[in-house]
Amino acid sequence: MISIAILGAGNVASHLYKAFSKSDTVDVKQWYNRSYDAIKSFKNETEVIDDLAKLKEVDVYILAVSDDALEEFSKTLPFNNRFIVHTSGTVSMYALDKKNKRGVFYPLQSFSKDANVNFENVPFCIETEEKSKMQMLKDLANALGSKYYKITTEQRKTLHVAAVFINNFTNQMYRIAHEISDAENIEFDLLKPLILETANKVQDMSPYMAQTGPAKRNDKKTLKKHLKRIENEEHKEIYKLITKSIQKTHGIKYRFDIKRKKH
Amino acid sequence: MISIAILGAGNVASHLYKAFSKSDTVDVKQWYNRSYDAIKSFKNETEVIDDLAKLKEVDVYILAVSDDALEEFSKTLPFNNRFIVHTSGTVSMYALDKKNKRGVFYPLQSFSKDANVNFENVPFCIETEEKSKMQMLKDLANALGSKYYKITTEQRKTLHVAAVFINNFTNQMYRIAHEISDAENIEFDLLKPLILETANKVQDMSPYMAQTGPAKRNDKKTLKKHLKRIENEEHKEIYKLITKSIQKTHGIKYRFDIKRKKH
Repeated sequence: MISIAILGAGNVASHLYKAFSKSDTVDVKQWYNRSYDAIKSFKNETEVIDDLAKLKEVDVYILAVSDDALEEFSKTLPFNNRFIVHTSGTVSMYALDKKNKRGVFYPLQSFSKDANVNFENVPFCIETEEKSKMQMLKDLANALGSKYYKITTEQRKTLHVAAVFINNFTNQMYRIAHEISDAENIEFDLLKPLILETANKVQDMSPYMAQTGPAKRNDKKTLKKHLKRIENEEHKEIYKLITKSIQKTHGIKYRFDIKRKKH
Repeated sequence: MISIAILGAGNVASHLYKAFSKSDTVDVKQWYNRSYDAIKSFKNETEVIDDLAKLKEVDVYILAVSDDALEEFSKTLPFNNRFIVHTSGTVSMYALDKKNKRGVFYPLQSFSKDANVNFENVPFCIETEEKSKMQMLKDLANALGSKYYKITTEQRKTLHVAAVFINNFTNQMYRIAHEISDAENIEFDLLKPLILETANKVQDMSPYMAQTGPAKRNDKKTLKKHLKRIENEEHKEIYKLITKSIQKTHGIKYRFDIKRKKH
């Protein structure tokens, strides 16, 4: 049995509390938050506290507080040489005060307050200062049915950039398609199955192999027709740039946006 | 019972044949292809032919041949005043020879040869020259358990542009994330759940509402860190352009790529 304490009461903290409290191999000994009100409704399930001095000794302290607060917060912990981890995608492991043994237990997923989280679909990026502590974080991930990946602080920062492409930029592609279809009174619902299919396809196949369409085929006629049909200048610019990117990826020399020199 | 003939033996034709032949409300009377070999293995299930002159009278002829061939092919049909539809996303309904009654029965999904298609997840764009024929296409979609949307030829062309953003461009976002993570020896598998979550989120929520991340938050510190971390110039350019697009969508005035004037 691994004993843990959860510190913080935001989305990640709350979801982790709920998931760990259902586990047979993890005992949530205490839940700390600086505001007692946010967690008091759980006082019959676990020991909820708002005073750091009351923290008992546990195997792992999970610091799920905001990125900006982590560094200072870790200094205020009234103990040394214990194992503390944060759950942030962007903060270095070394931002935590070195008086304790440090690690990272970062769930790569965006959490909403209300939606239920199925942790089987949430991969954890784990990192520890001391090799011997790694197994503890693997056990925590296993307790949630989650996959885990050993990821360094540097890798985690790169991962955050990749996640922006996967999540925010992809979502903006959906948004532009929404604007384009709305302008012609086409229901966006019509495009939703294609969104899912595109995401499903790369679960078993690389994005490279999964690519199709006029850019990949270098279908100049269609590319020109599409550009003519797009009215928004910014959407045109994006159409050109991503088409160019696809063609570069697939080794196509033709670039439809490069003007021919006249002399 | 609606009687149909399928013409062609490509991906769309084959998947439609298999799906309709399981339906209780549709009778696939004949399957035509100019090459008999491609369809002869189905001769015990339906009448397979390679001679247009042998086509019997049915309620709907589904012309699932290549986009480029459609116009000419429709001229070679040895009958008049019957109901013919094509299955293309890009060809005008009016490209079909006007000696017959024309329509479009376009499944908005990308089909692979081998993968099984669940038509419940495939929306059909339907269009008919004569209003009275519309019900027939609705019945065909219903027979497959598919949703249908009345879409004009002009709307269908716009839809094709939107689908490029949804499918090809989104896939290129995955590809770039793959390149970025590969360069740091991060397994792409780690990002796959986020791909699915992003696609699932917009099934019940608009992409506008679903947006998160540093561009939307106008988190300048993170935007700058990310740009510094991206080494590939083309990826940098895409990062800037899509960030700008997100900020425009969400009414944020700050543009981190606009240089300040020095005097």
